[in-house]
Amino acid sequence: MHSFFNPKSIAVIGATPKTFKGGYAILKNLITTFNGRIYPINPQHTHIEGIPCFPTITDIPDAVDLAIIFIAASLVPEALEQCEAKGVQGVMIESGGFAEADEKGKSLQNAIKSFVQRTGIRVWGPNCMGLSDGIRGYIFSFTDPKLLPYCLVPGPVSLIVQSGMISAGFIIDILSNGVTGFSKVCSIGNKVDINESDVLSYLLEDQDTCCVGLYLESFVNGRRFVDICRNSNKPVVVLKGGRSRKGAEAAVSHTASLAGNYQVAAGALAQAGVYEARDFKQLVDFCRTLALYPPRPNNSKGRIAVVTFSGASGIVSADMMEEQGLTLAELSEATKTRLKGIFPSWMPVANPVDIWPAIEQHSGTDLDIYSLALEACLEDPEVDAVLLHTFSGYTKVKLDLQEYSRLSRSTGKPVLVWLLGNREKAFLAQKAARDCGVLVFPELSRAVECLSILFQRPGIMPKSEHRQPEFPDGPQDIPAEALDILEKGIGPLDEQASKSILKSFGIPTVEETLITDPHECKDNATHMGFPLVMKGVQPGIVHKTELGLIELNIDRPDAAMQSFERIMLKMNGRGSILMQKQLKGDVELILGAIRDPQFGPCVMIGIGGTLAGLIDDTVFTIAPFNKEEAVNAIGRLRTQEIINGFRGTKPVDRNVIASFMVTLGRMMIDYPRIREIDINPVIVSGNSAVAVDATIVLSDCQVQ
Amino acid sequence: MHSFFNPKSIAVIGATPKTFKGGYAILKNLITTFNGRIYPINPQHTHIEGIPCFPTITDIPDAVDLAIIFIAASLVPEALEQCEAKGVQGVMIESGGFAEADEKGKSLQNAIKSFVQRTGIRVWGPNCMGLSDGIRGYIFSFTDPKLLPYCLVPGPVSLIVQSGMISAGFIIDILSNGVTGFSKVCSIGNKVDINESDVLSYLLEDQDTCCVGLYLESFVNGRRFVDICRNSNKPVVVLKGGRSRKGAEAAVSHTASLAGNYQVAAGALAQAGVYEARDFKQLVDFCRTLALYPPRPNNSKGRIAVVTFSGASGIVSADMMEEQGLTLAELSEATKTRLKGIFPSWMPVANPVDIWPAIEQHSGTDLDIYSLALEACLEDPEVDAVLLHTFSGYTKVKLDLQEYSRLSRSTGKPVLVWLLGNREKAFLAQKAARDCGVLVFPELSRAVECLSILFQRPGIMPKSEHRQPEFPDGPQDIPAEALDILEKGIGPLDEQASKSILKSFGIPTVEETLITDPHECKDNATHMGFPLVMKGVQPGIVHKTELGLIELNIDRPDAAMQSFERIMLKMNGRGSILMQKQLKGDVELILGAIRDPQFGPCVMIGIGGTLAGLIDDTVFTIAPFNKEEAVNAIGRLRTQEIINGFRGTKPVDRNVIASFMVTLGRMMIDYPRIREIDINPVIVSGNSAVAVDATIVLSDCQVQ
Repeated sequence: MHSFFNPKSIAVIGATPKTFKGGYAILKNLITTFNGRIYPINPQHTHIEGIPCFPTITDIPDAVDLAIIFIAASLVPEALEQCEAKGVQGVMIESGGFAEADEKGKSLQNAIKSFVQRTGIRVWGPNCMGLSDGIRGYIFSFTDPKLLPYCLVPGPVSLIVQSGMISAGFIIDILSNGVTGFSKVCSIGNKVDINESDVLSYLLEDQDTCCVGLYLESFVNGRRFVDICRNSNKPVVVLKGGRSRKGAEAAVSHTASLAGNYQVAAGALAQAGVYEARDFKQLVDFCRTLALYPPRPNNSKGRIAVVTFSGASGIVSADMMEEQGLTLAELSEATKTRLKGIFPSWMPVANPVDIWPAIEQHSGTDLDIYSLALEACLEDPEVDAVLLHTFSGYTKVKLDLQEYSRLSRSTGKPVLVWLLGNREKAFLAQKAARDCGVLVFPELSRAVECLSILFQRPGIMPKSEHRQPEFPDGPQDIPAEALDILEKGIGPLDEQASKSILKSFGIPTVEETLITDPHECKDNATHMGFPLVMKGVQPGIVHKTELGLIELNIDRPDAAMQSFERIMLKMNGRGSILMQKQLKGDVELILGAIRDPQFGPCVMIGIGGTLAGLIDDTVFTIAPFNKEEAVNAIGRLRTQEIINGFRGTKPVDRNVIASFMVTLGRMMIDYPRIREIDINPVIVSGNSAVAVDATIVLSDCQVQ
Repeated sequence: MHSFFNPKSIAVIGATPKTFKGGYAILKNLITTFNGRIYPINPQHTHIEGIPCFPTITDIPDAVDLAIIFIAASLVPEALEQCEAKGVQGVMIESGGFAEADEKGKSLQNAIKSFVQRTGIRVWGPNCMGLSDGIRGYIFSFTDPKLLPYCLVPGPVSLIVQSGMISAGFIIDILSNGVTGFSKVCSIGNKVDINESDVLSYLLEDQDTCCVGLYLESFVNGRRFVDICRNSNKPVVVLKGGRSRKGAEAAVSHTASLAGNYQVAAGALAQAGVYEARDFKQLVDFCRTLALYPPRPNNSKGRIAVVTFSGASGIVSADMMEEQGLTLAELSEATKTRLKGIFPSWMPVANPVDIWPAIEQHSGTDLDIYSLALEACLEDPEVDAVLLHTFSGYTKVKLDLQEYSRLSRSTGKPVLVWLLGNREKAFLAQKAARDCGVLVFPELSRAVECLSILFQRPGIMPKSEHRQPEFPDGPQDIPAEALDILEKGIGPLDEQASKSILKSFGIPTVEETLITDPHECKDNATHMGFPLVMKGVQPGIVHKTELGLIELNIDRPDAAMQSFERIMLKMNGRGSILMQKQLKGDVELILGAIRDPQFGPCVMIGIGGTLAGLIDDTVFTIAPFNKEEAVNAIGRLRTQEIINGFRGTKPVDRNVIASFMVTLGRMMIDYPRIREIDINPVIVSGNSAVAVDATIVLSDCQVQ
């Protein structure tokens, strides 16, 4: 990767003097920003912009570290051959017309893939806008030479984006508004070779980068991405494009990306400790916040003091904080006493700390009420962070950003500032804040969101090196009968077979008997006790509900007989009847497992029963995972309170559910023939979780 | 109100030459902005800022329309007497130190209230920042004379705010950033006399105001506010401070406001067709959007075309739109053909409409791809509005705001623009957009939120004049027995009495029998059929569940006998047993009614059963209301889908629930002794809704 980030010499294949072309912009940006050797390549010119030009890359006398290509897609394969001949280590293809365009483009992209596999030369792109480096000041991109080079500012945030716009116009907007500077901005395009994981692992080692933000439409290898994130201490934020069905459809035509199952991605990202953003500028705001204040100490609870010039802003902040899971700190007596010292006598001290009356009272003096109030709050052990509201451009309001920065650093507590003001003054303050390490936001809700993200704990981020191998002894022993089914079965197994497999892995299943004779019905019913469930079972029939083959709430022996006859009639007398004790638990869950094309084997947990139809509340976690991770996944269910017990139901032991999940994950890892597991419902009560109905789907073809 | 908005002459009581005082700022702002006569009042000066100064207001030789007071609270009563003597029609008290401060301030505020009642002179404030008028250019406020007068811009939005900051620093921020201009900005402070409803009804008649936004911590008379809103065609947007518990606590100390039950306010606002905002700048963005595009025609469905320069922005827009209830339009064939005419041949036409390749292809020509694509989309009958993404300051991107405005007006369809860009260029575009009536947003999510609000239909807004009087014949006749209870009962009625009252109003209640003898138990059980519920009933005992006096799922005669004995034992043999058929419906609801201090009698509907403990999903609607309004209230339940039937349950007839609600509203209106009604659960199935358990609470003291 070094040849992309630290080249000493660059060849621009497709350089041109025509100023409206990308090949000109790349060269011009290099001339403006790059201090190494630059070689324009174009057979039709001897010089471009006063620099000697070569017909092909092989004509360059010296070594070339990086080739940037901006020529028609159809000419790229030949150019790559020449790069190989020249011994170039890295090639960045910025032109488009590949897999995102048409069939011809797809085959050209496949040709590049073959080239990479054959030569080992790394290729970045195609269909991308390359790389900008705010620290070194390099721009390896066809972005407008009149804009970006003149606003590039170094900063602690790096971005990796599957979109040229975000690396160009968007960055110009962010930079010219003084929001933040950047370390690297990487546009990775179609990812034929170098993908988000390659660049991410490089940047997580980059000493100039404190936080990495990504805009992604797909994950080339979700599992590798997750492993990279969970093994790093640097915060990573992802904005996933194509979360919705329509958005996912649009992603296919954009960067030829299959957006995949967003819920799986969301689960995997949370499991890896990755933060999620929902909008572009929010992504940058989350990144600059986490770059300055990486994950909080464990004792940090999200108790916020609000120092404000306005009662209304304090109130609305409190409303927003409640929605975002933050709490208004209860100020300690010592802090109240300190604040009373600067407050007018009639004014009670409370949080939000409305300092306007104090400012009015001390108007004309040298007292900096803002700094005094901020210091008092930051030094309060009951306060974890301060949200400060202020205004720039009004003489009564002192805005000592240097002091806020110093107080934040000396106490180790975040200070986030909502800044209103006259446009020009606010802009100067924004830039000053950026330079001295104070987070300033023009929108209150965004400031509160960023505060909130500081106190989120996504996943538990167990580092790979600290993790116990989950299953040190290899696949779990299971009875020969179950093993036989797993090895030889095809497609969906019926309910009984599916549950027998689950049982063989130690998962509790409901008590049941299969009968075929109506006379067995009464005896079994009396033996099992009411209420009962009766289900018609036929080989190959999975959708029993839709066929009316399930009868619930059977509460008398004669009702059982009637159900038997009704179900048998529907099956034309072929098949058997499964009699089950109807369980009444505290919570109904759905548990399952799938193999995701981007993230591999995943276990799913969802709230079942009536709720399932109403709220789509499911969480995925990629396997293998340990019990702690499973407990975390349960905690990510939006309706997880249901598990705590409410309205008289008992709390459920989350460890029981977690063990259930770990077992499912293990099944998926140990037995690759299992394509899918669907257990619905799992009836949970106190410390038991019982699988009532289940379907296991095996691969369609038998293992040889 | 005229004397506040259109005075010909103004006296400033408390005018001073000390430039750091509010009394100076008010005078200075008048001198800068007001073209009528100005009279500084201060016994210590003969001239201030070169204008003759009077010892008291009565010394002014000419008529005074408006007095603005900025003196210590304790001196205000005397100043008011002088205003009365002078014959002033309106007084604006901007100084603080009243109910928001301390006990002394409270009694001073009460004195003002008495003054208003005695004299009929209207008082605005105290503790406020008065009024700014962007159309006339007036500033009646102690806001910094160096800031606001130099950025005031006329515009279609008026604000009414219970916060000085929002009328000062915040407005300077909005104005200096070119976001929008304002018609009136009114800071109403402690609302001793003139309140939000007074100002709102004035502004809804004001021809310069197209939309009114309010920041409120409380409603002085919620019912009046609702009536004003529902009788106006102009959109009203409210940001309610103190929605959360902590926020409500803070509101008390801010403007002495009791924030009240937010859920009641939210229900009433929705019922009145009022839009809600959650943040300050969002409030302004909603207002400027609704000022330009008032409520959409009825056939407008929210089908959006996205015209973008970037695939990624299109994808993320689609994701956001799905979350906000908007849909990506399916472009008609005609539109696709038009777009194909400007697209490169390899590029398929889809929505989001990514026009960047077309821009690249026609680069150097005169074709304005943006305008062409926008026109094609706006003229498509399948498109209700366009979200356009663009960039300012890049030569390849044409930004013809005049043309966008013309196309929007000629097609009658909204165009909202997400604009990125170089800071200075974007600012010029923002101001140009403001002036030619194009909505520009720097943040994508905000643009989508504003689009979404255009296609929201809060409430149904039936105008009072078109509404049938709900109950033309006065109180409904009910049996003498029920009437007797309603007239003479005190406090909470027991379950049976409560349900008998409901029944007398025509509300279906569960089949039940009260027994005291164990021998009745078996007969009744067999007669009613299983399963049964049995409840212990004792006079004055409301909380049966907590005392273990309810047994459910009784499915056999002997179980009924056992339950009888168990419950009787818990009641020490005193009391009776209520035997009820245990109903199994499709949906459990909670219905109720309360009297809210700000909004009066309200009916509440909520989802019951398991869900109730999990999701706080209740909607209030103020009584009286008709069936259509009740159906709308049901539609505002977040989990309302439950009523549509899912996973095999039948859909429920919303009219049945609506009638139930209308009856409850009528009960509250007709019988003021009913303090509270709580019906939990109401079992709903198909077209029946049955009250199973209920408590009616009557006033504590008997009517004389």
